[in-house]
Amino acid sequence: MSKIKAGIIGSTGYAGAELVRLLLAHPDVEIKWYGSRQYVDTPYADTYRNFFKLVDATCFDDNFDKLAEEVDVVFTATPQGYLGGILNEDILSKVKVVDLSADYRIKDVATYEKWYGIEHKSPKLIEEAVYGLCEINREDIKGKRLVANPGCYTTCSILSLFPLVEAGVVKEDGIIIDAKSGTSGAGRGAKVDNLFCEVNESMHAYGVTAHRHTPEIEEQLGYALGKSHAPLTIQFTPHLIPINRGILVTAYAKLSDPSISEDELRAIYKKRYENEYFIRLLPAGKLPDTRWVEGSNFVDINIKKDERTGNVVVMGALDNLVKGAAGQAVQNMNLIFGLKETAGLELVPMFP
Amino acid sequence: MSKIKAGIIGSTGYAGAELVRLLLAHPDVEIKWYGSRQYVDTPYADTYRNFFKLVDATCFDDNFDKLAEEVDVVFTATPQGYLGGILNEDILSKVKVVDLSADYRIKDVATYEKWYGIEHKSPKLIEEAVYGLCEINREDIKGKRLVANPGCYTTCSILSLFPLVEAGVVKEDGIIIDAKSGTSGAGRGAKVDNLFCEVNESMHAYGVTAHRHTPEIEEQLGYALGKSHAPLTIQFTPHLIPINRGILVTAYAKLSDPSISEDELRAIYKKRYENEYFIRLLPAGKLPDTRWVEGSNFVDINIKKDERTGNVVVMGALDNLVKGAAGQAVQNMNLIFGLKETAGLELVPMFP
Amino acid sequence: MSKIKAGIIGSTGYAGAELVRLLLAHPDVEIKWYGSRQYVDTPYADTYRNFFKLVDATCFDDNFDKLAEEVDVVFTATPQGYLGGILNEDILSKVKVVDLSADYRIKDVATYEKWYGIEHKSPKLIEEAVYGLCEINREDIKGKRLVANPGCYTTCSILSLFPLVEAGVVKEDGIIIDAKSGTSGAGRGAKVDNLFCEVNESMHAYGVTAHRHTPEIEEQLGYALGKSHAPLTIQFTPHLIPINRGILVTAYAKLSDPSISEDELRAIYKKRYENEYFIRLLPAGKLPDTRWVEGSNFVDINIKKDERTGNVVVMGALDNLVKGAAGQAVQNMNLIFGLKETAGLELVPMFP
Amino acid sequence: MSKIKAGIIGSTGYAGAELVRLLLAHPDVEIKWYGSRQYVDTPYADTYRNFFKLVDATCFDDNFDKLAEEVDVVFTATPQGYLGGILNEDILSKVKVVDLSADYRIKDVATYEKWYGIEHKSPKLIEEAVYGLCEINREDIKGKRLVANPGCYTTCSILSLFPLVEAGVVKEDGIIIDAKSGTSGAGRGAKVDNLFCEVNESMHAYGVTAHRHTPEIEEQLGYALGKSHAPLTIQFTPHLIPINRGILVTAYAKLSDPSISEDELRAIYKKRYENEYFIRLLPAGKLPDTRWVEGSNFVDINIKKDERTGNVVVMGALDNLVKGAAGQAVQNMNLIFGLKETAGLELVPMFP
Repeated sequence: MSKIKAGIIGSTGYAGAELVRLLLAHPDVEIKWYGSRQYVDTPYADTYRNFFKLVDATCFDDNFDKLAEEVDVVFTATPQGYLGGILNEDILSKVKVVDLSADYRIKDVATYEKWYGIEHKSPKLIEEAVYGLCEINREDIKGKRLVANPGCYTTCSILSLFPLVEAGVVKEDGIIIDAKSGTSGAGRGAKVDNLFCEVNESMHAYGVTAHRHTPEIEEQLGYALGKSHAPLTIQFTPHLIPINRGILVTAYAKLSDPSISEDELRAIYKKRYENEYFIRLLPAGKLPDTRWVEGSNFVDINIKKDERTGNVVVMGALDNLVKGAAGQAVQNMNLIFGLKETAGLELVPMFP
Repeated sequence: MSKIKAGIIGSTGYAGAELVRLLLAHPDVEIKWYGSRQYVDTPYADTYRNFFKLVDATCFDDNFDKLAEEVDVVFTATPQGYLGGILNEDILSKVKVVDLSADYRIKDVATYEKWYGIEHKSPKLIEEAVYGLCEINREDIKGKRLVANPGCYTTCSILSLFPLVEAGVVKEDGIIIDAKSGTSGAGRGAKVDNLFCEVNESMHAYGVTAHRHTPEIEEQLGYALGKSHAPLTIQFTPHLIPINRGILVTAYAKLSDPSISEDELRAIYKKRYENEYFIRLLPAGKLPDTRWVEGSNFVDINIKKDERTGNVVVMGALDNLVKGAAGQAVQNMNLIFGLKETAGLELVPMFP
Repeated sequence: MSKIKAGIIGSTGYAGAELVRLLLAHPDVEIKWYGSRQYVDTPYADTYRNFFKLVDATCFDDNFDKLAEEVDVVFTATPQGYLGGILNEDILSKVKVVDLSADYRIKDVATYEKWYGIEHKSPKLIEEAVYGLCEINREDIKGKRLVANPGCYTTCSILSLFPLVEAGVVKEDGIIIDAKSGTSGAGRGAKVDNLFCEVNESMHAYGVTAHRHTPEIEEQLGYALGKSHAPLTIQFTPHLIPINRGILVTAYAKLSDPSISEDELRAIYKKRYENEYFIRLLPAGKLPDTRWVEGSNFVDINIKKDERTGNVVVMGALDNLVKGAAGQAVQNMNLIFGLKETAGLELVPMFP
Repeated sequence: MSKIKAGIIGSTGYAGAELVRLLLAHPDVEIKWYGSRQYVDTPYADTYRNFFKLVDATCFDDNFDKLAEEVDVVFTATPQGYLGGILNEDILSKVKVVDLSADYRIKDVATYEKWYGIEHKSPKLIEEAVYGLCEINREDIKGKRLVANPGCYTTCSILSLFPLVEAGVVKEDGIIIDAKSGTSGAGRGAKVDNLFCEVNESMHAYGVTAHRHTPEIEEQLGYALGKSHAPLTIQFTPHLIPINRGILVTAYAKLSDPSISEDELRAIYKKRYENEYFIRLLPAGKLPDTRWVEGSNFVDINIKKDERTGNVVVMGALDNLVKGAAGQAVQNMNLIFGLKETAGLELVPMFP
């Protein structure tokens, strides 16, 4: 069988480069197009020297129409609004698209426009797009033309909380998600705030009450209660931490019935995720740590019931560039094309 | 006026060494006793070479009786249970004691014994001890013989939340404190879990639902509602972060009346802390970051009201070794001896 | 073809764990024995939770005789002197051994005993052992029973300097090697000096004039001038740097004939390494950086001629746990068993 | 006595901000002018929030003439060429200038112009300028109008090597300086190469054979052999290391007479530096580490003789922002104004 031809628009951001790392090792794919407006006409490996001797290609400027003729799948790791402004039926008739931006994640256009401050230029395509959280929407993704790859915080938050919400054992209101991210999540833009000396020996919250991943989490957790259920209202606070990779979510939910045991809660997760290769439900007492998932597509999850407060504390850890971005995008591609879902993703976490 | 003579038991832990750094620069104090069981009879500066040419002394073994004869104040930066097992009226009749351990922080002996798993050997002294959170208990500390220096997480948590609880604008139940600490808080013990390669590029929660600082926070926040008020019940989760110094607290509380504005909430803090040198209430929209307080005795605090959820998000940042340990201990010493409260503590935060 | 059965003695050190990571992804190998004195009878994935759900095995105690019956190859990632004290003809008649310790690296027993301070218990086997620097000794390694896997600093130092010495373009005396290592090279022992807060925000030289990798480099660089050439005398200084992985070597040599151009020098490297997959000679002006090789078996090398001083500055970068330890061990195993030399080692460097 | 009034041009770079930190704690100085082209008219503490509540001032644009009227001393922490292009006799008749740039460090204009690629606009002032390496040129600095504050690498390199060169015990040629710097030395410019994810888990050499601190070191080490001695020729290689602060120099020199003992070499340092408060010659066997000098004006130095190679290895560590920049600038100011040389600089190193 001939290999799937892939193009990447935005290949010189951190998520784009991680796509390159993963696709180079994928047995069924070859990268045909390294798109980068910023580094057009320069060798890709000049920008990311880890690919020296592994990638000979030179960066191309954007040309989605040409790209759609030449490849089978396009990954867009682009700023918000880019894909929304350019995508159309003609392109989708020729090529599959896995979008790592937020443009097609939120079903309600008004919600998107409010949180992102951008007018959506192709709202008609939103309905067609499937939210590419594979463990939740696997069947819907298969064969689709347009997949909205979830955000990094959202993947970790939703996968950590979904079973509890779905099972109805926590109160719908009052969920608090306190999330911590490594700095690669902030991208490769040259900003003072992301300089080594600013981030190192530092930690702080940001986007408090206003981070754009909030409505995405709220919508999906609402679906946990039914396909037409309204979004939940949650409190989401992200923090910037001086590590390269990793997201850790610590979430708090009120148990509907405080007499439910921790074992019973863990059983809900076991059942929900028992066939999920990429979700590792940890044994009781072992807590997720980003160091154990680095470089891999795994999400490590565990819970702790607090008998004193009647809360359940839920913790999840993943690598923001893999399961939180490029890894999940590849997983979506695998589903779209009917490949083995774990193809190219059976990565052993690298430690230390 | 002759200088105050100080002794430190446990001077070779990180908090002990920070006491040395601060007291060396204190205009009214001289250190007479560097106690360290582990490094007895070796030059102190061999263990902490930052003090080379600044400290000539050699470490002494513990001998509290002898020490009480020779100094005016003893700082104990010792494991839980040590001071509780050795302190007595005779010692207290001769010397002031600032205890950086938890032995006299919690008024209810049963609570202490339950959370620490240690029998308290001198429960009668608990009543006399004052909880040394200077901004809250200033007047009680002056002239006292025994001060229980608060924990690092607790200092940050209580100072961040106290005004809101005291003002009655948040619900007593349901407070969630998600705290992150630098690794110096884990001490200088040689443990695999604290090795560079284990902590670097890593983050994880620990002590979930069970961390010992929980009852300390609960008791003090109860007092915010009245001297005899019962402890609140809170959810406290600490996390280990790969930085040397710093604690960041992100706390969540439900507003009693959601119509209160963020400005009104900030006004509560302004009034409560307007004369506090060490508390810096940040302007609206500026969020606390550990990098801005490193090396100093400051606590940076800010709040954000969430109109959607009806929560207030409270953030506080401090240096765990200064305001979270040694700095506050010096501040307590200043109060005990009637010195200027900021003496030796007007440290400009060091960045980067 | 049935898979090669591998055993690892010392599987719970960092190099041992990296062997596990690499061998799990190796198409022709299965790990049959996870040896660890320290963690005997506990699940391997309890110690290295990155392998959770990937490794089910429990750690075995040492039993080399039993192990020799059960596997085809043994990797020993053990303290100096261990293998030297236990290896014998009987074992070697049954199993191949790749030794990651220093016991069989140095041909002159007296030199070994002087630098390591250990009596060598099996000096007769030293002659048989081949020094497993694959790019230099490839043909000698094929089919051998006992391979001495080079040290991390030595691999980087020798590969960086070998072509120059071999070509006779630098003076034999006066080579200076200033090397910097990430902290995983210090091992996983619980020592105060390796704690996060001691290593972070710190850098220092150690083992100055006395590091044990010195005679290993000297011997091999001597061989560059002929199989029976005496060791060179070099100056070697290692430094500890606060990163997890990576060795950077900056070496200085005096050009025999200062009129040789940088291009001519680079041509020597090109010719020597033109068929080497794992050696990446960088383009002029691009300097090696550990970040570009992390997680891979690559060595990035470049040189710079200084017209003012008549020196050539040689730089090399590798991942100390891969090409500096486990990766090279797998490469040696591939050579021993006649597998494709790059099998299981075509790892794309992970960045950031 | 009224306080010395100080102005800082370039106060929002890292060196400028460190000047602010030091001068705020200086008993004899008040800062009257926070100059910053980039942040003009914004509160200084908005840019460096560590100074919140400590500095009320707003940043001024450059206006050297006005500034010269208002203050007693100006510190210029500005890009190369700035001060050279603006300084004149009129300004110097009104105000003392301590220049942290390289404009007046090198006596030979041609050398300056060659290495910096800038035409020097005020070459006549070079002769008047004194090279502000206090431990070497103390007497010359006192009362001077214009002091060229040495570079960070150069301060560490020269102080580490000076006694050996001056004593004539090492060969003039062949000195190699392998230096490592924390990232604050790269400044606060928003460049991709200085982003957290690029620097963290990374190390590399840069400016190999071509770094601008080379001629500065060469000139000063020449003076060690006599005021009119020509510059030495040295090999200097800097490296970027993922720490905030610190420079570590490892230097190699050939002993003129290899029979000299390490004790004799150390005696040379002891004699040269015996009255120097800021230079700490470590005991035999204790090696400099940046962690022990962080935040202070100390330079820790030690040597190791290698009996095998006939080399002496010299190591020095300092904080690049203090003794390598702002601290030394304050030390120079103290000398200029006849203050106690250590005023405001008796900083205890902060660890961890």
